[in-house]
Amino acid sequence: MKPAAAHDFLQLNPAAGEPYYRQIYTRLRAAAADGLLKPGDRIPSARALAAELGLARGTVESAYSLLAAEGYIEARGQAGTVIAAGLQAKPSTAAAKAAPAPAAPAPYDFDNPAGRPAPLPRPFQMGVPALDAFPRKIWARLAARAARATGAADMLYPPPAGTDALRAEIARYLQLSRGLSCAPAQVFITAGYRDSLDLAARALLEPGDKVWVEDPGYPPTGALLRAAGMTLVGVPVDDDGLQVAEGLRLAPRARAAVVTPAHQSPLCVALSLQRRIELLDWATRSKAWIIEDDYDGEYRYVSRPLPALKSLDRDDRVLYAGTFSKVLFPAIRLAYLVVPLSQVARFEETARHFSGGSPALTQGIVADFMAEGHFARHIQRMRRLYGERRELAAAGLDAVLGKQMQMEARPGGMHLLMRLKGRRSDRALAEKMRQDGMFGRALSECLLAPREGLPPMLMLSFTNIDSRRKAQELARRILALL
Amino acid sequence: MKPAAAHDFLQLNPAAGEPYYRQIYTRLRAAAADGLLKPGDRIPSARALAAELGLARGTVESAYSLLAAEGYIEARGQAGTVIAAGLQAKPSTAAAKAAPAPAAPAPYDFDNPAGRPAPLPRPFQMGVPALDAFPRKIWARLAARAARATGAADMLYPPPAGTDALRAEIARYLQLSRGLSCAPAQVFITAGYRDSLDLAARALLEPGDKVWVEDPGYPPTGALLRAAGMTLVGVPVDDDGLQVAEGLRLAPRARAAVVTPAHQSPLCVALSLQRRIELLDWATRSKAWIIEDDYDGEYRYVSRPLPALKSLDRDDRVLYAGTFSKVLFPAIRLAYLVVPLSQVARFEETARHFSGGSPALTQGIVADFMAEGHFARHIQRMRRLYGERRELAAAGLDAVLGKQMQMEARPGGMHLLMRLKGRRSDRALAEKMRQDGMFGRALSECLLAPREGLPPMLMLSFTNIDSRRKAQELARRILALL
Repeated sequence: MKPAAAHDFLQLNPAAGEPYYRQIYTRLRAAAADGLLKPGDRIPSARALAAELGLARGTVESAYSLLAAEGYIEARGQAGTVIAAGLQAKPSTAAAKAAPAPAAPAPYDFDNPAGRPAPLPRPFQMGVPALDAFPRKIWARLAARAARATGAADMLYPPPAGTDALRAEIARYLQLSRGLSCAPAQVFITAGYRDSLDLAARALLEPGDKVWVEDPGYPPTGALLRAAGMTLVGVPVDDDGLQVAEGLRLAPRARAAVVTPAHQSPLCVALSLQRRIELLDWATRSKAWIIEDDYDGEYRYVSRPLPALKSLDRDDRVLYAGTFSKVLFPAIRLAYLVVPLSQVARFEETARHFSGGSPALTQGIVADFMAEGHFARHIQRMRRLYGERRELAAAGLDAVLGKQMQMEARPGGMHLLMRLKGRRSDRALAEKMRQDGMFGRALSECLLAPREGLPPMLMLSFTNIDSRRKAQELARRILALL
Repeated sequence: MKPAAAHDFLQLNPAAGEPYYRQIYTRLRAAAADGLLKPGDRIPSARALAAELGLARGTVESAYSLLAAEGYIEARGQAGTVIAAGLQAKPSTAAAKAAPAPAAPAPYDFDNPAGRPAPLPRPFQMGVPALDAFPRKIWARLAARAARATGAADMLYPPPAGTDALRAEIARYLQLSRGLSCAPAQVFITAGYRDSLDLAARALLEPGDKVWVEDPGYPPTGALLRAAGMTLVGVPVDDDGLQVAEGLRLAPRARAAVVTPAHQSPLCVALSLQRRIELLDWATRSKAWIIEDDYDGEYRYVSRPLPALKSLDRDDRVLYAGTFSKVLFPAIRLAYLVVPLSQVARFEETARHFSGGSPALTQGIVADFMAEGHFARHIQRMRRLYGERRELAAAGLDAVLGKQMQMEARPGGMHLLMRLKGRRSDRALAEKMRQDGMFGRALSECLLAPREGLPPMLMLSFTNIDSRRKAQELARRILALL
């Protein structure tokens, strides 16, 4: 076995018989040719590189003058030495021999993993709040302030369960807005809903355990649980939400259920009070856990938001999963899981093994955003705005597609449900919309297993549709695909 | 089953017989008494809360005037209505009845989980870079700029494997500084070393698989693998690093090995070339994976940094784990895992199921920090600084503790190894140091299983010791504990 690729820059070989300056020259040139160094990229000063390599400065300077003579690098005075502009990346011998490097993947989108690039967010993109309405100036100000205020204590490992400040703000917010009493110590900060679900599964479940999931449901929930080794039990959903009686029939001894009680994902129905009580009774009797995914419980337009299922939970069987992706924006990567008091120690242990915590900076910005009242104001503004956009989108779509689709009346959520009239395939239409650069999602794509008799239905987010005209334009794009 | 705790704020009960204004009054008062709302906290305007609850504004105003009359809240003109200053938090009836809330946990530290609060970082704290030497102004400037520049595309879900910009910067850096050729698509951005290890285990291993770990080793590695269901095989370490022959004897069919080749954690020895070749041969023959934890490979003071083990890996059996915790600071929560080309698709699939990606903001700041050359300059400055601090710390400790301890000569790393003379217990001393507010770690605490014949040894980080005087003061504190 010998050292690998010849252009590994620092791997200077004392036994090569090739002088060091020549080795540096060869390797830097190869890095430029391979595109690892791009035109305009700064390279270390000769002094710095010599120190780095433990060589005399002259050795590096020899290499640099050779590279400069051949036009690979340019001295730019104060700006230092850079890779020359106009240098064409040519595959070096080593790179040509290596396996072809796969292209960097496009931004991930679970609904369109192989889709063509499109302006972001794509029309109707689900799960994305109104990005134009986010208070970016306030946000940037708080971010700058938090970054400037970074002290030594803020640079150490953050607590795996989250900073005290953010946990306290969330506990206060849940009390006031979701009718949910909890101590800050019950609030575990995570990197997103998937991470919350993963934490819950690791703390409370064993591979092979049966878990009820809604069918149709939110595809990432099933995908994560399946990848984590759980056995999924799809429980059908009707106008009152999860059919608890069906769950009892299919798998009474399941260890957990994941539900979206406020607005079922994707059907947007609310879990009825009767079903909530049945579900809690089942969990109490069979010592099962309920994971309440309250991803957008804040957004209800017709009547006031429903209290969280967790607020009815007298026997501490419910874990409440909230996220900042929908009320702030997805790239923040912060969510939280409220765990029963009796399970706090177990979750602390699990978090300690698997997590080093979330970034102190983003936690600090969000805690300030909440403490200063921006968060509550933003949610309230968004609720009003979404109420308006929902109307605009519905009116615009109906004006153009009224003969082909019928909107389902739903009290909340961030998307419309359009039932396709006749015998059209929702899946085929969703696929065509994705091809066309829009975001398309069919109800049948949210099913755990294929099922007969489900109406063909399209889910269209309205959060980023800011005028009836825009809705009509997009509706015409859909019409052209029918 | 009935609704739970009476002070759940939003859970107004239409059937309670108590008017809504009274329910609001009672619950807000309880929230203030419970400390969920603190003096100075803003509460929503009557108009806003009425809209939130779907009530007439007058109803909320009635509740607010009652609260104001009793001194719970105060109108502050432009600043809105706030919880009154000087309000003493008294346990409400509901809170008194509820189970006592556990206190919020202190910042987590795996070496001192039950330790008393101490100024951070604690003296000798391992794994923490020189926080005083971090270029905070540059960092804050880049952070403010990145926050201001946040556009719609930066607010969506980031790619689960990391942003293109950061992956490309890391690939370029590894090429230049660690002699490691990889395409950006092989670089997976994670939330930290634990997250990298977890990703690798999920993509490549099955529960029950045997994994070689160094013994003594880095305790979190074993803890994570064990919690993830793996069977640990502790392989002893000598002056040449992991004893590959012992691994072969103990578990030739292990599926993976986790190693720290640059500076073994905690012994700081380098894995010899001979052992590297043996390890790679084993992995190739048995199709096992090697995870190279290169947590501080940059920091070597005597000769130049060793190339990464990965750079010798001709058969693509090595995964390279790097982190920004040691070269930037731990609270950033960014690390990376370079995976073999052949495994890129599998890792993309795993990342998609389990991760929503790392925050776009922190990824953007780090990518800019690298692209503008600050990163390379910082590492170089730190290498020089640590070389100095290592000398200062060694001299100061030796002056005071020379009769009790002997420093082991090691070429790199971020901590000193002090061998205790005589028959002292390293574990007892480390425990006393923790009691005293210092960071103490004994070699015997890094063992997977108790072992005879290991010398008593203390690990002391020198990165935050900036003078010989400070080292001597701390040495005297240790002396007093002996």
